[in-house]
Amino acid sequence: MAAIRVTVWNEFRHEKKHDAVKKVYPDGIHAAIAEGLKPGGFEIRTATLDEPEHGLTDDVLASTDVLTWWGHMAHGDVSDDVVAKVCARVLEGMGLITLHSGHYSKPFRKLMGTTCSLKWREAAEKERLWVVEPSHPIVEGIDEYIELEHTEMYGEFFDIPEPDELVFVSWFPGGEVFRSGCCFKRGQGRVFYFRPGHETFPIYRDENIVRVLANAVRWAAPVERPKLAFGNRKPLEKLG
Amino acid sequence: MAAIRVTVWNEFRHEKKHDAVKKVYPDGIHAAIAEGLKPGGFEIRTATLDEPEHGLTDDVLASTDVLTWWGHMAHGDVSDDVVAKVCARVLEGMGLITLHSGHYSKPFRKLMGTTCSLKWREAAEKERLWVVEPSHPIVEGIDEYIELEHTEMYGEFFDIPEPDELVFVSWFPGGEVFRSGCCFKRGQGRVFYFRPGHETFPIYRDENIVRVLANAVRWAAPVERPKLAFGNRKPLEKLG
Amino acid sequence: MAAIRVTVWNEFRHEKKHDAVKKVYPDGIHAAIAEGLKPGGFEIRTATLDEPEHGLTDDVLASTDVLTWWGHMAHGDVSDDVVAKVCARVLEGMGLITLHSGHYSKPFRKLMGTTCSLKWREAAEKERLWVVEPSHPIVEGIDEYIELEHTEMYGEFFDIPEPDELVFVSWFPGGEVFRSGCCFKRGQGRVFYFRPGHETFPIYRDENIVRVLANAVRWAAPVERPKLAFGNRKPLEKLG
Amino acid sequence: MAAIRVTVWNEFRHEKKHDAVKKVYPDGIHAAIAEGLKPGGFEIRTATLDEPEHGLTDDVLASTDVLTWWGHMAHGDVSDDVVAKVCARVLEGMGLITLHSGHYSKPFRKLMGTTCSLKWREAAEKERLWVVEPSHPIVEGIDEYIELEHTEMYGEFFDIPEPDELVFVSWFPGGEVFRSGCCFKRGQGRVFYFRPGHETFPIYRDENIVRVLANAVRWAAPVERPKLAFGNRKPLEKLG
Repeated sequence: MAAIRVTVWNEFRHEKKHDAVKKVYPDGIHAAIAEGLKPGGFEIRTATLDEPEHGLTDDVLASTDVLTWWGHMAHGDVSDDVVAKVCARVLEGMGLITLHSGHYSKPFRKLMGTTCSLKWREAAEKERLWVVEPSHPIVEGIDEYIELEHTEMYGEFFDIPEPDELVFVSWFPGGEVFRSGCCFKRGQGRVFYFRPGHETFPIYRDENIVRVLANAVRWAAPVERPKLAFGNRKPLEKLG
Repeated sequence: MAAIRVTVWNEFRHEKKHDAVKKVYPDGIHAAIAEGLKPGGFEIRTATLDEPEHGLTDDVLASTDVLTWWGHMAHGDVSDDVVAKVCARVLEGMGLITLHSGHYSKPFRKLMGTTCSLKWREAAEKERLWVVEPSHPIVEGIDEYIELEHTEMYGEFFDIPEPDELVFVSWFPGGEVFRSGCCFKRGQGRVFYFRPGHETFPIYRDENIVRVLANAVRWAAPVERPKLAFGNRKPLEKLG
Repeated sequence: MAAIRVTVWNEFRHEKKHDAVKKVYPDGIHAAIAEGLKPGGFEIRTATLDEPEHGLTDDVLASTDVLTWWGHMAHGDVSDDVVAKVCARVLEGMGLITLHSGHYSKPFRKLMGTTCSLKWREAAEKERLWVVEPSHPIVEGIDEYIELEHTEMYGEFFDIPEPDELVFVSWFPGGEVFRSGCCFKRGQGRVFYFRPGHETFPIYRDENIVRVLANAVRWAAPVERPKLAFGNRKPLEKLG
Repeated sequence: MAAIRVTVWNEFRHEKKHDAVKKVYPDGIHAAIAEGLKPGGFEIRTATLDEPEHGLTDDVLASTDVLTWWGHMAHGDVSDDVVAKVCARVLEGMGLITLHSGHYSKPFRKLMGTTCSLKWREAAEKERLWVVEPSHPIVEGIDEYIELEHTEMYGEFFDIPEPDELVFVSWFPGGEVFRSGCCFKRGQGRVFYFRPGHETFPIYRDENIVRVLANAVRWAAPVERPKLAFGNRKPLEKLG
């Protein structure tokens, strides 16, 4: 079986502008995610916003099985043309893993059809992600919960369609809960939203988070099948 | 309890251009749907594409609990501005009932996030809609299936997100099946896609179809609740 | 429309044995629930474990639209014969609202097919139930969350099938979350599991809880349809 | 990665009693299924009703990752004790693939909590199974539909809980449809119901059916995780 081809996309602006972020992710969030995925045996490359076509040319998209997406301060700078291509590729089979503040990214919002709004707070709170779907391949190797010492809080109501599978629900000390691991199927493709990952905390170096990401890549990888077919059709049976 | 306020929207082009359609629906498809809904005790008005703002002004939308949508040949003529307002109202709570060829309408596609493509054939085939969710209010008063003598065929794969509730599955003599009654929840609102209703057949005068429409209006009507709230939040509990 | 006929079932043992419970619910938990439902315009009666056939004779079940169930210390005393009849009536269309410790009741476990186990703690903790399905009739009139000052904690993993609709997720100060408002459809009937309601706290006098119960009764009430039909069938179409 | 350990269970009565069945499956349905799965690289054994403990001893169950189940004329001869053990193992993580007339088997009914009844007809009809969830690993390598020339018909309403994932919907020439490929998650385990497989047709030698079975084994195989934990718990956070 050929290796799953992963493209790790990152906005890569915070890391250049804010020292606090640069300290946590000196080579960018994408470099940390790529490093975490390496032991998974994937074929990995990275792409960032300020490259031509945001690094997501037709060739790159066509040869990507799973795209991971981290963005935050510059969602509006992503071109609608690239967004349209990314979404079309998802419907064709490419997996999309949307991370943390990517809830507000254009491709995720377009695929969900809702505002994807939520409540938030930056107070370096603890997060405890409880597994609520224990048979799911995304939680292979994960205990009954994952604990992260310092995170940005996201709280309900999270304006997404009802997830096709709800894998994690998060607890925060400030009194909120959040559906933090959500699976969606769209066309021939799959989307996983995974909440953790604020730019000022080294969350993408946490071994449980890295494990979930690798599991999610495998879950979201396309199955081999003919392209979806639509349009006018002759009857398969003789009409009376 | 105040009456549910329904706006029946119709493209209303076929009925003016094609004699075959005019014969079936002389006053327009909207008039037939409105007439069918009348015994339900709803407050009903109609709106059509060629009215200013397609008849869907801010005032109309703000005072609509459930919007039914029939369109076919002129989806592209619906202004993106009106589409954005319709979708925003759905997320705020307005019900949307998308009928037949409305699967390709802009508001439905935007709310689904997928292509909403399907297979089709015009051969005046029989359709048998089987109830697969018998506890659902949308099938109140409906037998184990609904039969329609002459319909346009729609076949799978229907490129929609997995319905939150699947109520009807259709059988066609040419060999196809179709998920023909599909419930979706989006934000604070609800969407029902209902397949039957080709312009050249008097389907909106069928008593079972009319019954499903009235049931669907009741199911999709908004519940009274505060508006959804988002954004930055103080903790509800004292942080340690 | 005829009034919905509700039977409020209660084990009614704690209230006789434990003074702390008697003080909160002097006439039994069933009396409090029945009183709370009264303004809803339902036709209400009660039934308890120590009545003949637990108060759930064939006549009572046949004339019950929605059954609410509270039990805790004596699940094992409920006869398997009555359990079989209750489950059969649910599949025929009777609504079942399972309350709090009723997660371990025989009818609920039989209808779920899983252990329905969970984690728990009696520490009079706060509970905050967040609405995660804001378009649902069960949350009509409910704000973005319900707060209860003193409750028994239930924590994930809650061993139920994935709910058909997840309406509430609870937060507890001890660090747990819980899927606390869960809708299930079974046969022609509907089941709502609602977590709050420990016997030592006056939770069934809380106005939000009472409101959810009344909403749930309406949601779970049967729709009028022919009985489900099964077995050998002649073809509906001529076989070639 | 260790090979997935599959136990192929068969009632194995028809094949001894009825010549028509013996001709199609001379060594039993289990032998045909086992042969079909062989290229998948699984570790396969078989078990049948008339062996001691139906071939499903504690040791066999403990060392089974996925159990496939075919039964029809002797569901009542399966001991309740073995049924309880099979269901407990599913909740612990063992996959269960229930085939055709196994819809009425004791383990499937117990795990579903419903009657699992349906409509049926033996008229050697064609079946066309349409894929309605094209991103699912169970349809890897499968075209937009599977066609079987001669089958027993099963029709809706199929009295199961709403599937967690609906993969196939079948069309029959007699006018019926059927949800014929249904995924369920129960506890830490997974269940796949797959309709085709009548004893008088060589369906388990069809290459598409064999492919789906192998895919389903992989989908249903347990993930490695700690056992589910329940019961009384100390708080994870300091209570105020």
